[in-house]
Amino acid sequence: MPRFHWEDFKPGSVETYGPRPVTREEIIAFAAEYDPQPMHLDEDAGRGTLLGGLAASGWHSCAILMRMSCDWFMLDSSSQGSPGIEEVRWLRPLRAGDSITLRRTVVDSRASKSKPALGITKFKYELVNQAGEVVTTLVCTIMFGRREPAAAGASA
Amino acid sequence: MPRFHWEDFKPGSVETYGPRPVTREEIIAFAAEYDPQPMHLDEDAGRGTLLGGLAASGWHSCAILMRMSCDWFMLDSSSQGSPGIEEVRWLRPLRAGDSITLRRTVVDSRASKSKPALGITKFKYELVNQAGEVVTTLVCTIMFGRREPAAAGASA
Repeated sequence: MPRFHWEDFKPGSVETYGPRPVTREEIIAFAAEYDPQPMHLDEDAGRGTLLGGLAASGWHSCAILMRMSCDWFMLDSSSQGSPGIEEVRWLRPLRAGDSITLRRTVVDSRASKSKPALGITKFKYELVNQAGEVVTTLVCTIMFGRREPAAAGASA
Repeated sequence: MPRFHWEDFKPGSVETYGPRPVTREEIIAFAAEYDPQPMHLDEDAGRGTLLGGLAASGWHSCAILMRMSCDWFMLDSSSQGSPGIEEVRWLRPLRAGDSITLRRTVVDSRASKSKPALGITKFKYELVNQAGEVVTTLVCTIMFGRREPAAAGASA
């Protein structure tokens, strides 16, 4: 029985998890595999770009955010998955040596109309660095099992 | 001098790249690092979920898509980066053994109002499997250097 169900994510609630350090080695390893643009691989190459130095791939920041949400609550939840992402914003570079915190806001929550055992929760995630600056924001919807399924017809 | 500039992405154009094979080993390696939910790590665990078997993390499908776009044109382009993603849809599971093609549609293209050397292109990407099914879609905006900067005032 997982700890977190749909009922545990109350609209308006804001919670944080972390911090997690980000290393040069992992920035370069991710980029080499999935996004080998020079500014994600090399300090000098990054200096000549808008990023102003080595910075993680935006996709790496999303992957780190996902892992933090797994370690925080997703792996101990009734998650049934997500249909996708509504928006990602890469606002500031994610740097080697940064220490990041994940802030989670419950934007919206509703019972499934068709499945009484499911609820649907919309989150806004923010990755925040050690200076309090928001690096990445992400809005997504996740389906969770309910602790107590709706009575027949009650959620239609 | 990169090969691809803003001028090379014509609204309405549709092109494809690939195919690329997807292996069980890489699905599990990505998941172990960034999204260790059981259905991304283990065939039996996946069978009990909506995914119906082992399937790649949605974030892995995005990372593979990014790598394919790099190998196809991004690394030989005047890209200045992206402010983020407008939408991701995970429509079907990405499976071990799949062979995927990347389809790129230029949705919109405009000159930068403030920077005469830049243009802004909106793409829709679709990852398509060997059965012709769309697995993942992604809409994003990328800034590119122009081959021929606008005359002063011309793009204001």
